[in-house]
Amino acid sequence: MKNFNFYNPVRILFGKGKIAEIGKYIPENARIMITYGGGSIMKNGVYDQVIAALKGKNVVEFGGIEANPQYETLLKAVEKVKAENVDFLLAVGGGSVLDGTKFIAAAAYYDGDEPWEILSRMRPIRKAMPLASVITLAATGSEMNSGGVITRAETQEKLSFGSPLLFPQFSVLDPEVTFSLPKQQVANGIVDAYIHVIEQYLTYPVNTPIQDRFAEGILLTLIEEGPKAINNPEPDYDNRANLMWAATMALNGQLSLGVETDWATHMIGHELTAYHGIDHAVTLAIVLPGVMRLLKEKRSEKLLQYAERVWNITQGREEDRIESAIKKTEQFFKSLGIGIRLSDHEVGEDTIDRIIERFNFRRMKTVGNQKDISVEDVRLVLEDVK
Amino acid sequence: MKNFNFYNPVRILFGKGKIAEIGKYIPENARIMITYGGGSIMKNGVYDQVIAALKGKNVVEFGGIEANPQYETLLKAVEKVKAENVDFLLAVGGGSVLDGTKFIAAAAYYDGDEPWEILSRMRPIRKAMPLASVITLAATGSEMNSGGVITRAETQEKLSFGSPLLFPQFSVLDPEVTFSLPKQQVANGIVDAYIHVIEQYLTYPVNTPIQDRFAEGILLTLIEEGPKAINNPEPDYDNRANLMWAATMALNGQLSLGVETDWATHMIGHELTAYHGIDHAVTLAIVLPGVMRLLKEKRSEKLLQYAERVWNITQGREEDRIESAIKKTEQFFKSLGIGIRLSDHEVGEDTIDRIIERFNFRRMKTVGNQKDISVEDVRLVLEDVK
Repeated sequence: MKNFNFYNPVRILFGKGKIAEIGKYIPENARIMITYGGGSIMKNGVYDQVIAALKGKNVVEFGGIEANPQYETLLKAVEKVKAENVDFLLAVGGGSVLDGTKFIAAAAYYDGDEPWEILSRMRPIRKAMPLASVITLAATGSEMNSGGVITRAETQEKLSFGSPLLFPQFSVLDPEVTFSLPKQQVANGIVDAYIHVIEQYLTYPVNTPIQDRFAEGILLTLIEEGPKAINNPEPDYDNRANLMWAATMALNGQLSLGVETDWATHMIGHELTAYHGIDHAVTLAIVLPGVMRLLKEKRSEKLLQYAERVWNITQGREEDRIESAIKKTEQFFKSLGIGIRLSDHEVGEDTIDRIIERFNFRRMKTVGNQKDISVEDVRLVLEDVK
Repeated sequence: MKNFNFYNPVRILFGKGKIAEIGKYIPENARIMITYGGGSIMKNGVYDQVIAALKGKNVVEFGGIEANPQYETLLKAVEKVKAENVDFLLAVGGGSVLDGTKFIAAAAYYDGDEPWEILSRMRPIRKAMPLASVITLAATGSEMNSGGVITRAETQEKLSFGSPLLFPQFSVLDPEVTFSLPKQQVANGIVDAYIHVIEQYLTYPVNTPIQDRFAEGILLTLIEEGPKAINNPEPDYDNRANLMWAATMALNGQLSLGVETDWATHMIGHELTAYHGIDHAVTLAIVLPGVMRLLKEKRSEKLLQYAERVWNITQGREEDRIESAIKKTEQFFKSLGIGIRLSDHEVGEDTIDRIIERFNFRRMKTVGNQKDISVEDVRLVLEDVK
C-alpha cells in the first residue's frame, strides 16, 4: 500500500424526505443562490421541496447550467453572485450542475486575469464560496468530492479542477428524486459510477485488499442493480437507493487511497464529448473496452482478478479469461441501452486524428497516471472500438 | 435501505513516516498535552518521533492512561489541562489512550455536577477541546470516529459516550509503529476489528448490498492477513498496513449506514471486562459464538450469507452451514491464540449471575439494538461458551 492522506468532510443526508432538513445546515443569514440546469426540477417537485425547506431565507436563482457545464454560462452566474451579494451556493441537479457550481464558488474569488486559468493553468484555489447540493442523479460522485469538470465551447476543451475548499458542506441524496429520470440518464449514471471504480482499480496490484474488495463490491452491486433500474416497469426505492449510494461511494476518494489509479479512459472520453457532445458516460463505455484490450498483457494481474471476482470467470487460458471479462463488460453496457462503438455515434477517423493531434499539441507523452498508454496507443484504443 | 446521515471529518495521515507531518495540522500557538499509556511509546521510538514533529511548540504530557481507561485517572488529566491551560490534546497510543483523551476533551468543559454524568446519564456534550491522535495499535477504530468507552473502577462499570465534537482533527496511522507490539495485542486488534464489522452486519437484511460487501471485504481481509501477522517471524509492512486500514474502516461509521446494527456482543463483553479485567477483544471472541448460536434461526438469512461469502460454505442443510460458519469463526479466533471460553479465563457461574442481575437492575428488557436477545437469553449465550 502506498502512503496517503484522506480528508472528506461532506455531510450526507440520505433517504426519503431528506431535502426538508437542509435549512439546519445553512447559516442563518446566508444569501443563497440556487443553481440548476434545464428546469426538470420544476416538473418533478424537487424545486418545490427545496423552496419549502428554505422558507424564510434569502434566496436567488440561477438556472440553465448545461450538461457538460459551459465556462461561458458559469461566468454569468459569477456576475449574478457579485451583483446580488450571494454568499452560499446550493446546487440542485446532477453532476453537471454541481461541478458548475463548484467552479462558480472558486471563480467568484479568483483574483488572476480570468478564471479559466483555474482549469487551463491549474492555478491554485485560495478561497471559495461555501456550497452544498441536492443531487438529482446518481452518477458523477461530485456530491461527495471536491472536484469538477468544465467545458469551454469556444475552444472545445473539457478540463478538470479541484480543491479541498470545494467539498460541499452537505449533499442530500434522496433516491425518490431519481424516479422521474429518463432511462438513458439512469443508464449513464450506472456506467459513470462503474468506470469511476474501474479507473481506481484496474491497474497494477500494490497489495490493497480492502480497497480492491470495496471496488469489487460496488461493481457487483452496479451489475446486479443496474439492469433492474432499466427494466423495472416502476422505479423501486431500494434499487434506486443502492445505485445512488454506489455512485457516491465510487468517487468519494476512498477507493483510490494507497492504490495505483489510471483515469486514461476519462481523458480520452473527455475529447469525444468536447468534439461531438456525446454524453460523458457514453464516451467512457466506448473507450474502456479499447483500453482494456490494449493493456491485456501489461495489466493482466488485475484483469484476471476482475474476471474472477466480478464476473466469476475462473476457467480457461488467462488471455481467454481476460477477453471474456472484457466482453462481459461490453455486454453489460449494451444491456443498459448504451451504444458502445464510435460508429453508433457517427464518430469517424478524422476525430481520432484530431484527438491524437491535440494530445501531441499539449506535449503529452502518455495518457493516464500509469504512463503505460502512449499517445499513439490512443489511436489503437479508438480503432479497436470503431 | 434505511435513511441515514453521515459526517466524518477526520483527516487520515496513513503510512511510513507520517508522524513527521503532524505539526502542519496543529494550530500555531496551541498549548498541547500529549496523552499516553504505560510508556511503550518511549521504547519503540514513537515518542521521539512525536516530539521531533512538535519541535518549537508548547507541549506538556500526561502518561499512565490504562487499558480500559479509568475515570479516576482521566479526572487527574482534566486537572492538568486546567492547571496548564492546555488547549489541544494529542493522544499517542492505542484505542484506550484515545478513548480516554476524548473523555478528557469533553470533561474539561463539562459544566454539570460531575463529568461521570456524560456516561451514566448520557448528558449531551456541548463543547469539547480539539484533539488528534497518533495511533499505535490497529484495533478499536477510535482514530476515525467520535466515540469512546470508559471504565469506573469504583463501581466496576464500563460505559460508552460520543459526540460529533469528539472526532479527532487528524489521526496518524503508520503501520511501522505496530511492529513492536506483542503478538497478543496484535491478535486482540484483529478480533476487535472483526467483531466491530460483525456488529454492523450480522443482523437482518434490509437490502444494502454495498454496505454488506464492504463488511465482507473487511472480514475476508482480516481472515487472510490476521494469521500472517501472528505467524510471520518478522513484521511485514503491507500486512500491518492492511490490518491497520481494516481496523479503521471497520468502525468509521460507514458500515452502519442504512443497516440494522446490533452491539449485543459488546454489551455483554463489557461486563466481563468490568468484572474480570479480561481484554476487551477477548471478551468479544468469547461472547460472539454464543450470540450467533442463540440467534441461528432468527438471523438465519444473514448467517447464511456470512457462511457463503466469508467462509465459502455453500453445501449442506441450512442449519449445518450456519453451524459450520460459527465453528470457522471460533477456529479463526483460536488460531490467533485467543482463549474463547469462559473457562479459559476462570470465569464461573457466579459471574453469569452477576451480569444478569446487573442487566435486570438497569431495567433492561433486551440487550443490543435488535431487541431479539432478552436478558434471560444472555444466560443461554454465556452458558453456551462456558
